[in-house]
Amino acid sequence: MTDSVRMSLAQVHDTARRLLLAQGFSEPHAEAIANTVTAAERDECRHHGLFRIAFYVNALKAGQASGEAEPTLTDLAPAIVRVDGHNGFSPLPLERGHAPLVERARAQGIAALAVNNALNVAALWPEVERLADDGLVAFAFVSAIPYVAPYGGIKPVFGTNPMAFAWPRPGRHPLVFDQASSMSARGEIQIRMRDGKPLEPGWAIDADGNPTTDGKAALAGAQLPFGGAKGSAIAMMVELLAGPLIGDVLSVEAGERDVAKTGAPCGGELVIAIDPTKAMPNGDLARQAEHAERLFSMILEQEGTRLPSDRRYRARERTTKEGVDVPASLHASLMELLAGRYSGARADYEGDPETGKSAA
Amino acid sequence: MTDSVRMSLAQVHDTARRLLLAQGFSEPHAEAIANTVTAAERDECRHHGLFRIAFYVNALKAGQASGEAEPTLTDLAPAIVRVDGHNGFSPLPLERGHAPLVERARAQGIAALAVNNALNVAALWPEVERLADDGLVAFAFVSAIPYVAPYGGIKPVFGTNPMAFAWPRPGRHPLVFDQASSMSARGEIQIRMRDGKPLEPGWAIDADGNPTTDGKAALAGAQLPFGGAKGSAIAMMVELLAGPLIGDVLSVEAGERDVAKTGAPCGGELVIAIDPTKAMPNGDLARQAEHAERLFSMILEQEGTRLPSDRRYRARERTTKEGVDVPASLHASLMELLAGRYSGARADYEGDPETGKSAA
Repeated sequence: MTDSVRMSLAQVHDTARRLLLAQGFSEPHAEAIANTVTAAERDECRHHGLFRIAFYVNALKAGQASGEAEPTLTDLAPAIVRVDGHNGFSPLPLERGHAPLVERARAQGIAALAVNNALNVAALWPEVERLADDGLVAFAFVSAIPYVAPYGGIKPVFGTNPMAFAWPRPGRHPLVFDQASSMSARGEIQIRMRDGKPLEPGWAIDADGNPTTDGKAALAGAQLPFGGAKGSAIAMMVELLAGPLIGDVLSVEAGERDVAKTGAPCGGELVIAIDPTKAMPNGDLARQAEHAERLFSMILEQEGTRLPSDRRYRARERTTKEGVDVPASLHASLMELLAGRYSGARADYEGDPETGKSAA
Repeated sequence: MTDSVRMSLAQVHDTARRLLLAQGFSEPHAEAIANTVTAAERDECRHHGLFRIAFYVNALKAGQASGEAEPTLTDLAPAIVRVDGHNGFSPLPLERGHAPLVERARAQGIAALAVNNALNVAALWPEVERLADDGLVAFAFVSAIPYVAPYGGIKPVFGTNPMAFAWPRPGRHPLVFDQASSMSARGEIQIRMRDGKPLEPGWAIDADGNPTTDGKAALAGAQLPFGGAKGSAIAMMVELLAGPLIGDVLSVEAGERDVAKTGAPCGGELVIAIDPTKAMPNGDLARQAEHAERLFSMILEQEGTRLPSDRRYRARERTTKEGVDVPASLHASLMELLAGRYSGARADYEGDPETGKSAA
């Protein structure tokens, strides 16, 4: 990444939105995806930023995603709302489900949002952070294409299956974590390959089940769950919550559906929100939050610690003022798409997973 | 453990119940604790079986636990029930909260039970398994005495903070996991010390923050979270859910309250239950469960894998027929307590944490 182009966050959003419109997304989808992509660039989660545009466009062009499906909402129970994405990408269904989930959580104390039939290539933290901004404690679970072997086994069954959690901190950014149940993200393997570096031991096994630090062997084999049997149990829980529980697919089934290998799986997501003020007698968010701050202080007063979302918030402060640096090769391919041209959007600026060579 | 005494599960229950009555517990508490202890012996989770009786009795004798407090139930919201344990042990509050939680989850789709002011020295799987037996998906979270340093730090802040999850499998035992967010259970360290064996690398650090495999140094230092930063994030989440969210204590505060060092912390527990049939349109547990079985099959068809609760269920099948072998030294101390005598109940049949010597 020698050359780069500096863009303000407003430019990121505008470019993403216009590009998506030019490629055939409806106004609501283009806006929602641009919001998600811009939030990722803002927080320097580059894998979910402009880099991801190619995944959105490729899935649309392959006919596997709808660019205009209007999400439909259904009440399944007083405390469970369903949003059907009808094969569109998840940002719009999640935005449409947000207010109803907040309303149900405040009315019932706890509530869930089941998102079905939505393509998910975004991070989970935006939706849980948004719920925490509204004063709720939130969880999100999503499963994905099978890359991860169960503990003890060698064949991929689970996706990287992230789980996110957010805790509101009045007057500050919420505490948020969003973590894969695999040792490494898929993208981290691709970055190591691009840079010609070995993987960390423990990340993956080859097709015969032997530990490997070779990226290519890892992609042909399986990633491993974090924390051994315990991380594997969490990966399994995420499969159940985002799949069978809400009538949606397992990671393996999402993989089978992705016939064109766009890397944009269609499936389910479960979001749970709790209103803290309803979780104790005379609940008072300020008081509950102050109590939690005691915990955060005990962590942060120890050298070498940090809270999970701190890095994102520090990046946010910086990029909001200074903008972000977009790799020139990525910027060039975005300009092509913005001009309405499409000859196979490059989803590989991080390097070609097959050859390990840089795409630049 | 040379000598042992064979007991049927009925004898275990009867002994535990009568012993607790003899030591001053009320009939409802004695019955509920005996149920919990017997379930643990039945599933060969010996740390939570008869071995635990000493913790119950010691906390009562120290004046830190009530032996007769009647739990009180309050509706905090349509989908949140609270049970106040009034300083009694958790098995009775959990039993009393079970039916209301099931009823709310079925009515609202998702519901939570906040247990407050209860001493918790039991495992979490009994309550989530019981909810799954009623057809619900369930989670439980409890924090405990601070033994675990946050990732990057060296001073204990978190308890071993277990999280449990259960998934109903009609016609079979539910799938259940109940896992500490620390690398090892506290008791595993004590067992290694008793046996004169070193700890596994990665379990703990000494008081200066250096990795140690010495049990005594570990107990003076801190245990480590499983899976590095990710397990630490889960430990933090458990603290927030079982403490500030429901108006109860952090692990550190539970530790401060345990003035007599009984190892029986008083605090909160959060249980969440979801009715799967309300989580999708025309939900049908049999169909949802069948879908999940596809996942379990893909795991189990791989050599070297197992489902988290399999070991307990295999033990259950055996002990239900054959009974359990109780170490003679433990049995003798139980007989003392059964006779109504108390001269400091031994909570150390696993070995004395201070000397590393066997208590036998």
